[in-house]
Amino acid sequence: MKKRIAILPGDGIGPEVCESATKVLNEIGRLYNHEFEFVYGDLGGVAIDKTGNPLPEETLTICRQSDAVLLGAVGGPKWDTLPGSQRPEQGLLGLRKQLELFANLRPVTIYDALAEASPLKSEVVEGVDLLIVRELTGGIYFGEPRERRGEGKQETAVDTLVYSREEIERIVRKGFEFAKERRGHLTSVDKANVLESSRLWREIVEEVAKDYPEVTYTHMLVDNAAMQLIRNPRQFDVMVTENMFGDILSDEASMITGSLGMLPSASMSQNGPGLFEPIHGSAPDIAGKGIANPLATLSSLTMMLTFAFQMPEEATALQNAINDVLAKGHRTADITNDQTTAISTNEMTEKVIEAL
Amino acid sequence: MKKRIAILPGDGIGPEVCESATKVLNEIGRLYNHEFEFVYGDLGGVAIDKTGNPLPEETLTICRQSDAVLLGAVGGPKWDTLPGSQRPEQGLLGLRKQLELFANLRPVTIYDALAEASPLKSEVVEGVDLLIVRELTGGIYFGEPRERRGEGKQETAVDTLVYSREEIERIVRKGFEFAKERRGHLTSVDKANVLESSRLWREIVEEVAKDYPEVTYTHMLVDNAAMQLIRNPRQFDVMVTENMFGDILSDEASMITGSLGMLPSASMSQNGPGLFEPIHGSAPDIAGKGIANPLATLSSLTMMLTFAFQMPEEATALQNAINDVLAKGHRTADITNDQTTAISTNEMTEKVIEAL
Ligand SMILES: CC(C)[C@H](C(=O)O)[C@@H](O)C(=O)O
Ligand SMILES: CC(C)[C@H](C(=O)O)[C@@H](O)C(=O)O
Repeated sequence: MKKRIAILPGDGIGPEVCESATKVLNEIGRLYNHEFEFVYGDLGGVAIDKTGNPLPEETLTICRQSDAVLLGAVGGPKWDTLPGSQRPEQGLLGLRKQLELFANLRPVTIYDALAEASPLKSEVVEGVDLLIVRELTGGIYFGEPRERRGEGKQETAVDTLVYSREEIERIVRKGFEFAKERRGHLTSVDKANVLESSRLWREIVEEVAKDYPEVTYTHMLVDNAAMQLIRNPRQFDVMVTENMFGDILSDEASMITGSLGMLPSASMSQNGPGLFEPIHGSAPDIAGKGIANPLATLSSLTMMLTFAFQMPEEATALQNAINDVLAKGHRTADITNDQTTAISTNEMTEKVIEAL
Repeated sequence: MKKRIAILPGDGIGPEVCESATKVLNEIGRLYNHEFEFVYGDLGGVAIDKTGNPLPEETLTICRQSDAVLLGAVGGPKWDTLPGSQRPEQGLLGLRKQLELFANLRPVTIYDALAEASPLKSEVVEGVDLLIVRELTGGIYFGEPRERRGEGKQETAVDTLVYSREEIERIVRKGFEFAKERRGHLTSVDKANVLESSRLWREIVEEVAKDYPEVTYTHMLVDNAAMQLIRNPRQFDVMVTENMFGDILSDEASMITGSLGMLPSASMSQNGPGLFEPIHGSAPDIAGKGIANPLATLSSLTMMLTFAFQMPEEATALQNAINDVLAKGHRTADITNDQTTAISTNEMTEKVIEAL
């Protein structure tokens, strides 16, 4: 098959991990007889520096003309003092909205070889395998009005949390779909004892549930979910929630593994190209040193192969290669305690290619 | 001194833990020559059953005429099917608003004797001693409009997150005050890369900080805070945040200890009586069995003695008594692995009274 991939390296270590990804994709293409074409675009700080705009129109066009988008990372101290609307993150938020990437998927799994990295006890984290399905284009991130009112002591700031039935239904349905394909359990997270939007959310979960008799589901309040993720993360299979709760809970859940440098994500739309990115940030402190861990990005490629290209065999091969490399003890600096034996981004990439 | 305390036992194990508290207060009164007068009021499910209203006017009057309020717990499955506006929690939300309890204090400390109960590794939790200062009467909990709009597929639900300069300033000031009296560090948690209300929040933190040159402070995004609480909770001294973020983070933080049955809270107004309550729920499954852990409630009394009555000596004596009892190995069922030796609510209360 022939696939066109928009690569948005972004800032910090973004270009390094994206380079690793293109090498690995080329190898997969060679082995399985696919042609992956890469088109590069700017997003975030690098785009601000070049064009003054964190999301240039050209980048959007490139993404729209591709079968999938790979993103490195955006942001860094250099752009932290810019006014809110011109910050690198705005590029990311704009991209999500423009490509209608309403479903953010954040799997959290423990690599046996790295289980001891968790701040949680090993008996708590062993075997954790959960998927957070976060709504990504609605809620308080995009609701209007968002503004200042009044002056002096009377000044107020307002944000609006708004969800339509349609927005909720399509993400809840995603949640049930994934639960059906996994272990058959969905936890819907809301704050229905306080929020009107959560009450609508809960009603819709009840309705959609009728279409998935094979899936069991529970409603959980967000404060309780924040506790349960630490108390007993194994209780979760799929968790579905709105944008802001998903932001908080998915970052909390990522800590369960203790190795942020390992975790992938995917953001999907109904029909257009999906966006795949590691969950770690741009790590400006180690940028350009060639020591970044590329595995979260490679793991995001397994999601791209699975969800965007329907190449399950290739995805499994890549995931197995990652597992192999870890089992053999190869570690980048972020996941080893023994700095002397830490390997570089390039070396790790080569190891994965060998294992393929 | 003479102090009048409104006792709102509420539902589930609420009455049992409140009884323990009154016994201990009587003993402290005897030892230190104070007179504690108790006036009882209904709140939550028990109030719904008696009057149809989770927060009867009479309860409010009793609270307003007291020097402090002690609350057991509210809620239970019996009232879970009632419409939102008539649920037990509404009594609690109403009470917070009516008494203007804008500052919720949630200390999280690890009792050495119980450190192994944490789901986190002991090297991560050892020595944790943090205080979450949560705004409690504003934000999305109370903002208007909160409503449904439109019909069918077009139906939307709206909640409003609104904060005035005044509301933010008074809670941020509390945060700095506590930091000043503790280890001198404040973490202000917001989502300033997305929310207008968080941008105003951040501006105000910068302004108020000028009045506290002895306090160092950092801004932290809420998603990062959710990670850092697990990764390295010792980095925090005082954390100040808005209502919803505080709800989520304080429950998450409570899990650090692994023993919900130990944690107290206080909710303070500018001038009126404060409200003191354990953070655990009504635990309907063990209600009436006399096995509930009263220590979170007794620990809430230490906050009452400190903040409402300015009785630091008595507060320290009570806290030492609790520490003693734990160090001697006395455990209620929720904090022991050895059920056969678990003691009852009454026995635990007696042990604390002896230790006083
Ligand atoms: C950068 C920020 C706007 C973004 C978000 O809040 O969605 C990030 O935290 C994420 O989760 O991808
Ligand atoms: C019962 C509920 C409304 C309440 C809240 O969200 O504030 C509770 O979770 C709490 O934290 O006291």
